[in-house]
Amino acid sequence: MAWNTDLRWRLPLTCLLLQVAMVVLFGVFVRYDPEADARWGEEKRRRNISSDVENDFYYRYPSFQDVHVMIFVGFGFLMTFLQRYGFGAVGFNFLLAAFGIQWALLMQGWFHSFHGGYILLGVENLINADFCVGSVCVAFGAILGKVSPVQLLIMTLFQVTLFSVNEFILLNLLQVKDAGGSMTIHTFGAYFGLTVTWILYRPNLDQSKERQSSVYQSDLFAMIGTLFLWMYWPSFNSAVSNHGDAQHRAAINTYCSLAACVLTSVALSSALQKKGKLDMVHIQNATLAGGVAVGTAAEMMLTPYGSLLVGFICGIVSTLGFVYLTPFLESRLRIQDTCGIHNLHGMPGIIGGIVGAVTAACASTEVYGEEGLAQAFDFHGSKARWTPSTQGGFQAAGIFVSLAMALAGGTIVGIILKFPVWGQPADQNCFEDEVYWEVPKEPEHTVHLPEDSTLKPVAS
Amino acid sequence: MAWNTDLRWRLPLTCLLLQVAMVVLFGVFVRYDPEADARWGEEKRRRNISSDVENDFYYRYPSFQDVHVMIFVGFGFLMTFLQRYGFGAVGFNFLLAAFGIQWALLMQGWFHSFHGGYILLGVENLINADFCVGSVCVAFGAILGKVSPVQLLIMTLFQVTLFSVNEFILLNLLQVKDAGGSMTIHTFGAYFGLTVTWILYRPNLDQSKERQSSVYQSDLFAMIGTLFLWMYWPSFNSAVSNHGDAQHRAAINTYCSLAACVLTSVALSSALQKKGKLDMVHIQNATLAGGVAVGTAAEMMLTPYGSLLVGFICGIVSTLGFVYLTPFLESRLRIQDTCGIHNLHGMPGIIGGIVGAVTAACASTEVYGEEGLAQAFDFHGSKARWTPSTQGGFQAAGIFVSLAMALAGGTIVGIILKFPVWGQPADQNCFEDEVYWEVPKEPEHTVHLPEDSTLKPVAS
Amino acid sequence: MAWNTDLRWRLPLTCLLLQVAMVVLFGVFVRYDPEADARWGEEKRRRNISSDVENDFYYRYPSFQDVHVMIFVGFGFLMTFLQRYGFGAVGFNFLLAAFGIQWALLMQGWFHSFHGGYILLGVENLINADFCVGSVCVAFGAILGKVSPVQLLIMTLFQVTLFSVNEFILLNLLQVKDAGGSMTIHTFGAYFGLTVTWILYRPNLDQSKERQSSVYQSDLFAMIGTLFLWMYWPSFNSAVSNHGDAQHRAAINTYCSLAACVLTSVALSSALQKKGKLDMVHIQNATLAGGVAVGTAAEMMLTPYGSLLVGFICGIVSTLGFVYLTPFLESRLRIQDTCGIHNLHGMPGIIGGIVGAVTAACASTEVYGEEGLAQAFDFHGSKARWTPSTQGGFQAAGIFVSLAMALAGGTIVGIILKFPVWGQPADQNCFEDEVYWEVPKEPEHTVHLPEDSTLKPVAS
Repeated sequence: MAWNTDLRWRLPLTCLLLQVAMVVLFGVFVRYDPEADARWGEEKRRRNISSDVENDFYYRYPSFQDVHVMIFVGFGFLMTFLQRYGFGAVGFNFLLAAFGIQWALLMQGWFHSFHGGYILLGVENLINADFCVGSVCVAFGAILGKVSPVQLLIMTLFQVTLFSVNEFILLNLLQVKDAGGSMTIHTFGAYFGLTVTWILYRPNLDQSKERQSSVYQSDLFAMIGTLFLWMYWPSFNSAVSNHGDAQHRAAINTYCSLAACVLTSVALSSALQKKGKLDMVHIQNATLAGGVAVGTAAEMMLTPYGSLLVGFICGIVSTLGFVYLTPFLESRLRIQDTCGIHNLHGMPGIIGGIVGAVTAACASTEVYGEEGLAQAFDFHGSKARWTPSTQGGFQAAGIFVSLAMALAGGTIVGIILKFPVWGQPADQNCFEDEVYWEVPKEPEHTVHLPEDSTLKPVAS
Repeated sequence: MAWNTDLRWRLPLTCLLLQVAMVVLFGVFVRYDPEADARWGEEKRRRNISSDVENDFYYRYPSFQDVHVMIFVGFGFLMTFLQRYGFGAVGFNFLLAAFGIQWALLMQGWFHSFHGGYILLGVENLINADFCVGSVCVAFGAILGKVSPVQLLIMTLFQVTLFSVNEFILLNLLQVKDAGGSMTIHTFGAYFGLTVTWILYRPNLDQSKERQSSVYQSDLFAMIGTLFLWMYWPSFNSAVSNHGDAQHRAAINTYCSLAACVLTSVALSSALQKKGKLDMVHIQNATLAGGVAVGTAAEMMLTPYGSLLVGFICGIVSTLGFVYLTPFLESRLRIQDTCGIHNLHGMPGIIGGIVGAVTAACASTEVYGEEGLAQAFDFHGSKARWTPSTQGGFQAAGIFVSLAMALAGGTIVGIILKFPVWGQPADQNCFEDEVYWEVPKEPEHTVHLPEDSTLKPVAS
Repeated sequence: MAWNTDLRWRLPLTCLLLQVAMVVLFGVFVRYDPEADARWGEEKRRRNISSDVENDFYYRYPSFQDVHVMIFVGFGFLMTFLQRYGFGAVGFNFLLAAFGIQWALLMQGWFHSFHGGYILLGVENLINADFCVGSVCVAFGAILGKVSPVQLLIMTLFQVTLFSVNEFILLNLLQVKDAGGSMTIHTFGAYFGLTVTWILYRPNLDQSKERQSSVYQSDLFAMIGTLFLWMYWPSFNSAVSNHGDAQHRAAINTYCSLAACVLTSVALSSALQKKGKLDMVHIQNATLAGGVAVGTAAEMMLTPYGSLLVGFICGIVSTLGFVYLTPFLESRLRIQDTCGIHNLHGMPGIIGGIVGAVTAACASTEVYGEEGLAQAFDFHGSKARWTPSTQGGFQAAGIFVSLAMALAGGTIVGIILKFPVWGQPADQNCFEDEVYWEVPKEPEHTVHLPEDSTLKPVAS
């Protein structure tokens, strides 16, 4: 089956329409948070704050920038591993994220920052918008190389919406804790993407098989993405935690989990290969599973030892997934998962939800102190009578809600994306930048010229 | 025309001379700001500061590091898009910036941080030095591939000097606000560079035309530069704003403007191409115009909606510029603009100046509060009787001053650089690393060896 | 001589064994620092702290992230310059650092953060663990391409141990100052690595000579490493300094030293080459020597002028080393130093130790103030009667202790690594990723297809 992949009017119109909508909606709804407003001086006096350093900007901006790098360079370059899809990986990720953050500011704003008819923006909103888009980047990994940018923008529109609803259910109705988003970002994003790719199943994708692999240079580009994700993940998991010990602890736990995950990923990668050689796919992906899996519990008293254990397990699970599960999903369940997001975000996301539920259920005043426990789980107001096991139960429920939302939402969105009008590539043209990009011609002779013969002889 | 491109004595002597001058001038003039001096403990008591966290270092250092990355990795890699000029792009940018920041510390120090016969250095000076060099990096974009490193060092010497004078006129005499440098950095840098390249016009540059394009890998390297510029631009525009709400607001506005800019750049890139395919040049450059264009107004109450609008327009203007204006400038006005800086920094810089003037002129106590307005525009002391429209008028004047300084300065510097003694490459050797770099030989056989035949057979 | 390079059981078992040991030891020994513990609320009251911003996390976390980038992206990509060893460079660096930081948390924890039977982790521990691993990354540079990952893990195990002992001797027994680690990290790491490679001398390494050079793309990848090291070095040298002026000053000094170093490196690189062309090896490495050489003195009152001078000298020394000393070491002393760490870390490290000793010895109350001097050098408690010259003397002793530890330790570890059971590559297979990695096949035809003939014709 072949579709028209000329996007000359569809892509520009989609972009302009969405962007005009954003401008209008921002005009109607979006203003500054008091901490970013010129009246901050008055606000300081009202709240009896003596120093500008108490502005949330200084608590969260460095983490925001790290998260921002993860979304645009991290996810973007991680997906450049394909030999002929580097432009699409980094360019479409750029496009969908740039749209997604705007729409997320609105959606999340209506749910969480709506005061007096206005969404009030501060640095925490920016972080949360990046987080929301992170789940779209995850889903993008499943369909990488098989969709058009128009499809990606439509998916982003719907996924951000559903993400925000799911997040609202989890954080506000179930009142779970999920600072690093094991459930809201990774579990939701992964199973959403897997459902979409399942609906978009391409029986003749093997016609593009030769391009669905890496070359030497593309694997190095992908390592840029891997490392920036890996290094900044402590910022990701701590970015929106409570000020003070919670942010501090979340960073430490994530650091530990990720370190352990590298060693078990390497161990399994070597052990599962006939000649004991390492596979770049595992190094690029499975090493990150430890960050996903402490996304919920990182801000809790997981202990450094507990974090190591989680990373230990996830490196193994994720690498096993790449070797055995991904081929099985493709051949038996017709789930074509380009980047193996099930191994990096799906299973580790669920593990992360479980770890969070167990860690919450095991919380005690001996460990947290009375005040610390109430602070960590917001056991006041409507939750004043909750116990750690109540919290653990709701945490567990959050996993299922996220899964259900992902499967239902992914199905609907997959069906929408299946209409043959969005400019998707033919099966034999998948994983190929030339479909949507002006690709530079290879120079006639890359062999460069002998040192001085071609350079103009020297005058003086 | 061919020149001697052997720089064996010219480049080392230039570098050593400049660096010796720096050492001597630093020895005579430069000391630490009280906040970086070992007597900070006494200073804290004198200024009745109770905590080290009030040291400006903690307010600005994270932003400084982001700006630093933009100058060295951002600009450096952005210019690696040429197929055979990656070493020159990243290496010469490194060289000129390393010299430029030292000279900028002195020049800006004399104008702004000169106390008791000494320039007192703190973190804000480092940021401003990076900013100043940013304008040189912009100008470098126009002449990329056509000049020698000696010429670049000379241009840096003069441009930093002129930048500092222009900045002094704008910030101290006209008393304009320009925290993100739409006028001082981008407008000045772009028109300075365009004037230089106009003077250095090469009628036979088409002899190097085959090298003045990208290859697949070089476009990916350039995306590293693009993304780090894009991601860290909120830090750029907020780095030297007032503590508290101004920094916070500048980051939010820049984030919004840049996001909108991506969508309109993509829209126009696709719409202007026969088959609707995207052009990497636009994705690498036009997506950044939104950051340039809120450089003046980002710290003002531009509103998130206003920021989106600015980004929206600039993505369009910039992409149109690449498609229609750059070829026109080259063919009709003899302005050979290698990177298209007129589209990324020139027009968006002027737009940014205008947006800043209008936003300032429209400022009111209803929006800012009485105290906020005075704080935002320094309406005290010598400006105590200024109104927002006075401010707006002076802002507008700043644009013209910057343009005049750029055109006049660029002409003089262009004439100096035209002397045929600086080792510039011949027309047929432009955009070629081999002129100034030891370029590694391509391996005889990149075809790598079949897996086991060449590896020594295993012993045990 | 050929060894079995199939690591199928050796590498997995080594990784799993080490990681299990880490989990167990963390379980027994590691807990959170009060600033990262849920009881922080109580701690704040106890220590009479009014704001969360006083949590050390906010003073040090941005610097930590910069250091983290230096270790994983900086060192990792710096070593990708070899044409066929990019996977090994970035991948093995990732592996050894991920293990090393865990073991460093334990070793350094026992020496410095052991309270009531537990190691208490906070953000400063994470920085110090990264620092410790930095010295292993340095040593890795000497043996790059010639060892197996099993050997690297073993070396890491021993080197982290010895590093921690040496650091304890210097910081706690000799009570020297070495915030940026000129002695503990660079001198120790470099001479340790050089000793190891001397013991592992390979007489027939010229059989791999063709692969021991760069190609065009690999040099650009290496520049990513160089620039991130260069840009974030101010954070490295200031990360664990005292709050306030010391961190501020360390960043300024490092910024200055590095800038000067670039110009003299370029000067010498051009001057020492027959045709005056620049050599990428020097730009990638010698430009960083200025950061190494202010590692000890950066937090002292070195003055910006002094920093420039140090950078000036080190750019020259380091480039001279690459041109003259490295070939000499290889041919005469049988020290095969793949990355030239002697020029980047060895000599500059020793210079840094000397600069630190001299700067300390010259400290005076006129410059530091009475209080500042005591604060800068901890002249209270057991050091209450020290004078600057005492400090200078002990600083000098620290250089010799570090050298002695490096030479002795390197000898022992080199002998252990010489056993022919660790899967090291044969002399003719060095610098080749294919030995330990699944390397993707080159595509049959990189020549891509003419624009429309291969893309499925459009349907609609």
